[in-house]
Amino acid sequence: MKELHLISTGNQSMDTFVHISSLVHSYVDYIHIREKHRSAKEISMIVEKLLEANVPTQKIIVNDRVDVAVVYGVGGVQLAHHSLAPKRIKEKFPFLRVGRSVHTLEEAKQAEDEGADYVVFGHIYETNCKEGLKPRGLSSLQQLASYICIPVVAIGGIKPYHVRDVFMAGAKGIAVMSTVFDADDPLYMVQLYRKQMGANTWTF
Amino acid sequence: MKELHLISTGNQSMDTFVHISSLVHSYVDYIHIREKHRSAKEISMIVEKLLEANVPTQKIIVNDRVDVAVVYGVGGVQLAHHSLAPKRIKEKFPFLRVGRSVHTLEEAKQAEDEGADYVVFGHIYETNCKEGLKPRGLSSLQQLASYICIPVVAIGGIKPYHVRDVFMAGAKGIAVMSTVFDADDPLYMVQLYRKQMGANTWTF
Repeated sequence: MKELHLISTGNQSMDTFVHISSLVHSYVDYIHIREKHRSAKEISMIVEKLLEANVPTQKIIVNDRVDVAVVYGVGGVQLAHHSLAPKRIKEKFPFLRVGRSVHTLEEAKQAEDEGADYVVFGHIYETNCKEGLKPRGLSSLQQLASYICIPVVAIGGIKPYHVRDVFMAGAKGIAVMSTVFDADDPLYMVQLYRKQMGANTWTF
Repeated sequence: MKELHLISTGNQSMDTFVHISSLVHSYVDYIHIREKHRSAKEISMIVEKLLEANVPTQKIIVNDRVDVAVVYGVGGVQLAHHSLAPKRIKEKFPFLRVGRSVHTLEEAKQAEDEGADYVVFGHIYETNCKEGLKPRGLSSLQQLASYICIPVVAIGGIKPYHVRDVFMAGAKGIAVMSTVFDADDPLYMVQLYRKQMGANTWTF
């Protein structure tokens, strides 16, 4: 099953993010709340607003704040290098789905060893979010995906026309941010991504 | 039992904070890690360093990060207005000791209603940490302490010679920051506070 992850841009209003999420959630597998500048209370408010907008609890992933994820029983937590270690989290919350954002083979291997359920790896293509930083490219993705056993979700500048190549390189999922959240028509965009991923399991 | 809480200043190095804590922990009831600018990983490192320095796990309180508190099984969590709601935390972690920092009667009442185990209220006296802000004074403390049933820990500019007045006003504990952590002789300072609190239960 190919996964489509949406990740908040961190520079939209709470309401805009929730509104777009409410429009598109049926077409995606996970929606990540990645709002580094926001407090636990604000992230909680976003979770509550998403739930009110009928986004399924299990589709919500909270970045970094394991406490918010556990308290609301959402679908998982996404960790960065500055987060709690996956191992510590899995010891206490063995059933919490834990993703880890990685940028190297070593980080990915460590995440796997520590019990992470999947990694998000990037950036694959050039993207404004990582301006000036050389993208890691498809060959790095391929190398990583063959090196570790847990699923790799690819991120970074992935346009709908890249989708086939990214999955061919071994990704089990893709993650997109501004391409959807900053789009004139976010619903059309997710439908386009989903179509490129093979519409077998999805009906438009 | 009168409680003495130490709270990190947020502007010392990790090592300085841990070193001072290791010197004084026998004389205090709780040591709060209140380092708002630090990541979950850094706060975890501080917890680990405190434990290595033989600070008892149950004396450690983590500010805001419920996840770090739960993962390390420390003595409690201290919440601010921007934190998760005490109610949510108590639903999920009924045995976690939850403190709430408050500045008004209403906030204190709400904290009590939501299941907080105690409140930290201040600032009582003038302090550099709240420069230009009028202190709330002893009468506010007295009013608050008689209004709610859970213990009130007083904070803000409390010098050793204030201790008697603060407890007379109804506080069950006091919290100090820079007076200890920025002192030339932190150990002497905590002994002084403890002495003022009545040395019955403590041996120097």
